[in-house]
Amino acid sequence: MNKLKKYKPVDPDFKKKVQDSFYRQPFMELIGAELTKIEPGECEISLPFQPGLTQQHGYFHAGVIGTLADNGAGYAAFSLMAKDASVLTIEYKLNLVSPGTGDSLLGCSQVLRHGKTITVCRSDVFGVSGDQRKLCATALVTIMTMAGMKDSK
Amino acid sequence: MNKLKKYKPVDPDFKKKVQDSFYRQPFMELIGAELTKIEPGECEISLPFQPGLTQQHGYFHAGVIGTLADNGAGYAAFSLMAKDASVLTIEYKLNLVSPGTGDSLLGCSQVLRHGKTITVCRSDVFGVSGDQRKLCATALVTIMTMAGMKDSK
Amino acid sequence: MNKLKKYKPVDPDFKKKVQDSFYRQPFMELIGAELTKIEPGECEISLPFQPGLTQQHGYFHAGVIGTLADNGAGYAAFSLMAKDASVLTIEYKLNLVSPGTGDSLLGCSQVLRHGKTITVCRSDVFGVSGDQRKLCATALVTIMTMAGMKDSK
Amino acid sequence: MNKLKKYKPVDPDFKKKVQDSFYRQPFMELIGAELTKIEPGECEISLPFQPGLTQQHGYFHAGVIGTLADNGAGYAAFSLMAKDASVLTIEYKLNLVSPGTGDSLLGCSQVLRHGKTITVCRSDVFGVSGDQRKLCATALVTIMTMAGMKDSK
Repeated sequence: MNKLKKYKPVDPDFKKKVQDSFYRQPFMELIGAELTKIEPGECEISLPFQPGLTQQHGYFHAGVIGTLADNGAGYAAFSLMAKDASVLTIEYKLNLVSPGTGDSLLGCSQVLRHGKTITVCRSDVFGVSGDQRKLCATALVTIMTMAGMKDSK
Repeated sequence: MNKLKKYKPVDPDFKKKVQDSFYRQPFMELIGAELTKIEPGECEISLPFQPGLTQQHGYFHAGVIGTLADNGAGYAAFSLMAKDASVLTIEYKLNLVSPGTGDSLLGCSQVLRHGKTITVCRSDVFGVSGDQRKLCATALVTIMTMAGMKDSK
Repeated sequence: MNKLKKYKPVDPDFKKKVQDSFYRQPFMELIGAELTKIEPGECEISLPFQPGLTQQHGYFHAGVIGTLADNGAGYAAFSLMAKDASVLTIEYKLNLVSPGTGDSLLGCSQVLRHGKTITVCRSDVFGVSGDQRKLCATALVTIMTMAGMKDSK
Repeated sequence: MNKLKKYKPVDPDFKKKVQDSFYRQPFMELIGAELTKIEPGECEISLPFQPGLTQQHGYFHAGVIGTLADNGAGYAAFSLMAKDASVLTIEYKLNLVSPGTGDSLLGCSQVLRHGKTITVCRSDVFGVSGDQRKLCATALVTIMTMAGMKDSK
């Protein structure tokens, strides 16, 4: 399979930029998501279980799983963008491969290909119980760089 | 383009079954979503705006939009299933075509093809402002019928 | 569901431009595909059956079906582009809903949303037998406009 | 990211079964594709360049690239199925990340999750020039096991 590249960020302050943007999203606060890792072209988001995040059988809701897959991909891509660019999800596709169970979800996103306008990312979302991880979903996400449109004011 | 079929439900109580299942999802309560229409092979979900549902620029979060697309498709499919079956999302793919703005979101889902095991649905999600609707996302969703596994206990 | 818009082409010679580009594709000649309709934001491709296009059970091959879905979407989008732009498929997602049978396949593609950089299309592919059409696949396709890069030399 | 599992085939003759099925596809012969590797849960397909496989700019056609992604995934999944089962693609989603160039294409497909009914695969398609490989597309593919329906007569 394809090996993942090492990326060099063009914005030396990419970590701060991503963190600021992540925590300016009220929806991340509503669900209780935390940004646990940000490296060039890579992002991890953790989401502790709470009953409000579940579907009718008590598992993490697919919409929550998709949120991590999309959001992590956006910030993995954003980490490689210039200071004055912002990030837009064009589309994502998510396969749910096992029920979303565990003490928390962990979304792991990586850039597969970073282009001037289009960045393609993969996101895997795991259910985490103690030190066990189980893949519950995998996604491909297409991100657009909006040059000259700063993410924050 | 393909015309949408009229479907006949095999479970005469499909409306009650769908409503019960929908409101047993704590995540729908957390975000404030309401089931506004359920017909054979068709489902609509409304989600009033609230600041907690937004991303960093104040729009409805893509994860919220994806949640409506996935959930509506699941229940559009579920409306056609037998009493003793439950519903599972295999995968969904969502194109975000304009920012999620408006007083509310409206997710409109329809079954494109209903098979014994696999049902394929389309979901359109609109931003609604007064009596104006603007398409903000469109999705294809693949649903599996879990025969002999009742949705509720 | 979302109603389809009427689009106005910016290039008055869009029909000729699309036809020229379509028939410059050697792969369309290899499989025997014909461009049967081109309107602003709309494209139809017909592909007569031949044994060389089949998979192991004698149906049209999924790769052939995907080819029509992708190609039709590209030209539906291309019909709306300026004279000096070319067209690039970013991604497509195809649900195969019934076996590819019939005297021919008909791919029907329409633009759902045309933006400056990104155009989103839907493609339905039908198996055609006499005057019967049966949906065999449906796709969402994301197209990029490459401004200032003419399609032909 | 998710580590790939080692799979055990339930059919000891899986290699022969896959090869037989692959070469019974007339479309693979039309385009000149060869099955170059088949292991449990894994499949590689090679496709030498020929002018008939190209689009209007001389690159491998996206439809050809999608064909390798879909077909390889189907056979990666088929390698894990029982003798009396056959394989059906439910859907695939393909991101095209660079132009399809090179002396040949190489499609590499792997099973990410193998279930009783649904198997999810990833396919990467590379352009190969000498001993250089360049990723030109990546796909997620959803496959269904058709139990009790032998692939051949």
